[in-house]
Amino acid sequence: MFIKRTDLALEARELWQESAERTTRLMGVKATKTKLEGYPVTRVDILDHRGEEALGKPQGSYFTIDLTTFWQRKADFFERAVRAVGTELKALLPPEGAVLVVGLGNAAMTPDAVGPLALDSVLITRHLLSAMPKQFAGFRPVAAFRTGVLGTTGVESAEAVRGLVEEVRPALVLAIDALASRRCGRVCATVQLSDTGIIPGSGVGNHRSALNQETLGVPVFAIGVPTVVDSATLAADVLEESGAEKIDEERLRDHEPFMVTTRDIDQQVRDLSKVVGYGINWALQDLEIEEMNALLS
Amino acid sequence: MFIKRTDLALEARELWQESAERTTRLMGVKATKTKLEGYPVTRVDILDHRGEEALGKPQGSYFTIDLTTFWQRKADFFERAVRAVGTELKALLPPEGAVLVVGLGNAAMTPDAVGPLALDSVLITRHLLSAMPKQFAGFRPVAAFRTGVLGTTGVESAEAVRGLVEEVRPALVLAIDALASRRCGRVCATVQLSDTGIIPGSGVGNHRSALNQETLGVPVFAIGVPTVVDSATLAADVLEESGAEKIDEERLRDHEPFMVTTRDIDQQVRDLSKVVGYGINWALQDLEIEEMNALLS
Amino acid sequence: MFIKRTDLALEARELWQESAERTTRLMGVKATKTKLEGYPVTRVDILDHRGEEALGKPQGSYFTIDLTTFWQRKADFFERAVRAVGTELKALLPPEGAVLVVGLGNAAMTPDAVGPLALDSVLITRHLLSAMPKQFAGFRPVAAFRTGVLGTTGVESAEAVRGLVEEVRPALVLAIDALASRRCGRVCATVQLSDTGIIPGSGVGNHRSALNQETLGVPVFAIGVPTVVDSATLAADVLEESGAEKIDEERLRDHEPFMVTTRDIDQQVRDLSKVVGYGINWALQDLEIEEMNALLS
Amino acid sequence: MFIKRTDLALEARELWQESAERTTRLMGVKATKTKLEGYPVTRVDILDHRGEEALGKPQGSYFTIDLTTFWQRKADFFERAVRAVGTELKALLPPEGAVLVVGLGNAAMTPDAVGPLALDSVLITRHLLSAMPKQFAGFRPVAAFRTGVLGTTGVESAEAVRGLVEEVRPALVLAIDALASRRCGRVCATVQLSDTGIIPGSGVGNHRSALNQETLGVPVFAIGVPTVVDSATLAADVLEESGAEKIDEERLRDHEPFMVTTRDIDQQVRDLSKVVGYGINWALQDLEIEEMNALLS
Repeated sequence: MFIKRTDLALEARELWQESAERTTRLMGVKATKTKLEGYPVTRVDILDHRGEEALGKPQGSYFTIDLTTFWQRKADFFERAVRAVGTELKALLPPEGAVLVVGLGNAAMTPDAVGPLALDSVLITRHLLSAMPKQFAGFRPVAAFRTGVLGTTGVESAEAVRGLVEEVRPALVLAIDALASRRCGRVCATVQLSDTGIIPGSGVGNHRSALNQETLGVPVFAIGVPTVVDSATLAADVLEESGAEKIDEERLRDHEPFMVTTRDIDQQVRDLSKVVGYGINWALQDLEIEEMNALLS
Repeated sequence: MFIKRTDLALEARELWQESAERTTRLMGVKATKTKLEGYPVTRVDILDHRGEEALGKPQGSYFTIDLTTFWQRKADFFERAVRAVGTELKALLPPEGAVLVVGLGNAAMTPDAVGPLALDSVLITRHLLSAMPKQFAGFRPVAAFRTGVLGTTGVESAEAVRGLVEEVRPALVLAIDALASRRCGRVCATVQLSDTGIIPGSGVGNHRSALNQETLGVPVFAIGVPTVVDSATLAADVLEESGAEKIDEERLRDHEPFMVTTRDIDQQVRDLSKVVGYGINWALQDLEIEEMNALLS
Repeated sequence: MFIKRTDLALEARELWQESAERTTRLMGVKATKTKLEGYPVTRVDILDHRGEEALGKPQGSYFTIDLTTFWQRKADFFERAVRAVGTELKALLPPEGAVLVVGLGNAAMTPDAVGPLALDSVLITRHLLSAMPKQFAGFRPVAAFRTGVLGTTGVESAEAVRGLVEEVRPALVLAIDALASRRCGRVCATVQLSDTGIIPGSGVGNHRSALNQETLGVPVFAIGVPTVVDSATLAADVLEESGAEKIDEERLRDHEPFMVTTRDIDQQVRDLSKVVGYGINWALQDLEIEEMNALLS
Repeated sequence: MFIKRTDLALEARELWQESAERTTRLMGVKATKTKLEGYPVTRVDILDHRGEEALGKPQGSYFTIDLTTFWQRKADFFERAVRAVGTELKALLPPEGAVLVVGLGNAAMTPDAVGPLALDSVLITRHLLSAMPKQFAGFRPVAAFRTGVLGTTGVESAEAVRGLVEEVRPALVLAIDALASRRCGRVCATVQLSDTGIIPGSGVGNHRSALNQETLGVPVFAIGVPTVVDSATLAADVLEESGAEKIDEERLRDHEPFMVTTRDIDQQVRDLSKVVGYGINWALQDLEIEEMNALLS
């Protein structure tokens, strides 16, 4: 069967449901919808191995914040997005302990640059707390690491992070990465949070490369932003939007796949990465957005 | 009818021929195929108003150099691409006179940055010839202009170029721009040369914005590299590749169009822009590629 | 005699006064001091040819805003700097008419990048007023031009600006450039405004390259930020600060001069360029700083 | 006494000798001069604790390659510089074993960017050897790490490197850093190699932050390029060049010091960083410069 490629739990569930064969109920998965700051939020819980198998993702909670209306740039769109991401993240993370934020991906390749770009907006405090513990007592310790890519480091991201975890001894790791979505409309218009760790380069099945509790020894949380869509998935998507009743998926099976992104990706990645970075500050520090602006300028 | 969007004369001709209604012969258009340095070259001549109407482009000659195999990086792929582009361009341009090379597009938006990026590889000589005419007697005078984009200049590219042409008085203008193709396989794998001028932002029908003999008072040649594909066109393309006999184009008509590009666009635009810049040097100056390397480092 | 190199009228006057020979009064020059938003402002008026000769600068008014305390980053330091620069500039410029803002210098060479960097913070409105005159009726028309440098354009900045002035027909030109100061303490800590035009590359005596009423046909105002200091001038400066009573200037005469800048120039140029850009918006548009932030993000 | 600030062993020795008090012989230090590829090389060996005390640097060998004539851009200047640096480095390093190359410094601050910029020209092979050991059997394993700066990571460079050394287990670490020189003429015109490790931020006396055998458990070699000069040192330098017989150093003592660099630092750092990166390839891999060009493009 033609597989629509996605890194979003939300879409994995959609695809399961859309599939013609699925007349039965999806067991081991629970989904709930809410709204936060005007942005829709979908929570998908994968509860057991039935859910894991059906959706192809590890057990845990996945929150998808739908920022489609962000791009209408209505009143306070940026601040609301930061608070939406930050509030969900705060609820997901343990309330205390040092944090190591890891930016995965290639800063020189725009659709892969969400991780390093978001880190530019994260407040780094570990060294300040270490040097002046009294003056910075109100801050939570945060360190950051940009993994780079294998071709320019020679070292798997997971190896490098493991070495750093040994030295820094954080209470948790928070990993930021670019994702693949099944829909162009979700590119740079969605943020997914999860408590399940991350496999860089998404699901290539290389277990040594996973960033999770098992490989790093501390809980690993993930923030992802979809920036690319598989070409065959896009084709199916466009046809469906155009009113085609049913795509003959056989047709798409043999197509040599490649990943596409939008023409406006430079601006979109820049803006969403800032939302992610500020959202992390919102979750970890007791600061207003104005104060973040001042500290990061 | 669903219109497959393209800026390539080659593809406009393909589309005309593929169209179910076209059982008649395409009048006013001539096409010939050759090879140069291992790369296929297609020449499309639009001979009269029948050709103009059929293909939606002004009368003149269009050369499309197919650099698909460039990305296999076989022996001398870069040098051969430069010579292929340079040789065709040299045959197209008047053999003498000062040249103003215009880089259109937005340097901060990767799929739109071909123009400004290519200029970084063009040898600029006008000021040297002006200051030391004897020492640089072997060079052809070349000046360059980066138009930027309307949102950051407030001035239409054509206006700004016209002002500069008045001052610099070149024998010809050579404009570099990013194009839209109907096929992902041609993105950053094709170079189109033409002697017909250019309409920035492609065919929006704004005659004031055209760069051509009529608006600038000197002949205008164009070099374009496709970097984006319309989403509906991509969908049709993927389905065709997948063996679908015939796409129901009605389906695609109502789809809200957007432009997509490849995930690897940063590297691809960088590499092809260098081919274009060096190809221009090859056409205008009497230099080996090694010498260009030394002069541009 | 050893010449301390400077582009600031304020410093040219200082140097005249410090000179041992000057026991007479400086004729044809008037200087006054005020404060604006907490920042000291010195106005030097060169009134006639005696002043021109003494200070080596054309007749006109020069305002130097001393932003030394900017770097202490006290309350509202950025907003106050923008208002100080903006208020002086507003008083200097004609109250109406379209403006062409010209950013001189090399964006790829940090100490020379003030012009192009400042333009990134200037609101460009000419095209909006042209397309939707009613909706944007409250704005003053502003266009922008980045001249680049001779080595990458082949065209003198003055030539290119003259061509654009012919097309755009602004009421005035406002040119932004990097300057040389005699004191390291003024590097990225001073803004000079003047109504006298500008000679790019400062005072090389090439009259064809001047941007002024004579060469462009419209009034030319200038904003400059010192980013470099001549090495011999720095040496004299350091010795004086260190308490040396009198430098033997003969010693410095034969020294091969070169320009130096500070180690922190990247951050300093970025910050001061934003002050300049916002200051221009403050002078030309009826907007609060918050509104500029929203429009430029 | 006024201290002329330097990170170069060569200059520390010069300063010792120039000092008026030094009528005795410098014990515990040996210096020899040679030429390599047309560039002068000075070797300073600090042999024992007397040498350490006199020069303020740890025991070991320091090679200074004088690339002043590089900037005359005579025949093969780049290739000769690469071979000079590469040949000295090859003689200094153990002939076998995996190498971790560490780029220290701030990529966003030009005079501090030598480390990260040089890494862009280093061939990274560890992952290739790991995935395809037979195909890449001719290469020596090389991994790379960009430490970033404390303010953007929260982690001391030495901590992060130690964690990575634990994972990667290299036979040696090779650290690249920007240095301070006492002379402007040596800025981006000198490369220092040593087998003594490195203290980032140079000699602030923070032993925890050193990168050396003691802190990392493997031998640490260093490559440094001076990019800044202390302002008081520059002043003394300029006065001396100008023929002053003797500087009254008392004068310079109270001067508030700051670091300066040259106006052309962007281009100079880019060019010298490439020399360093290619020099490392020359020392570690069996490759011609042409082959490096092909592999790094």
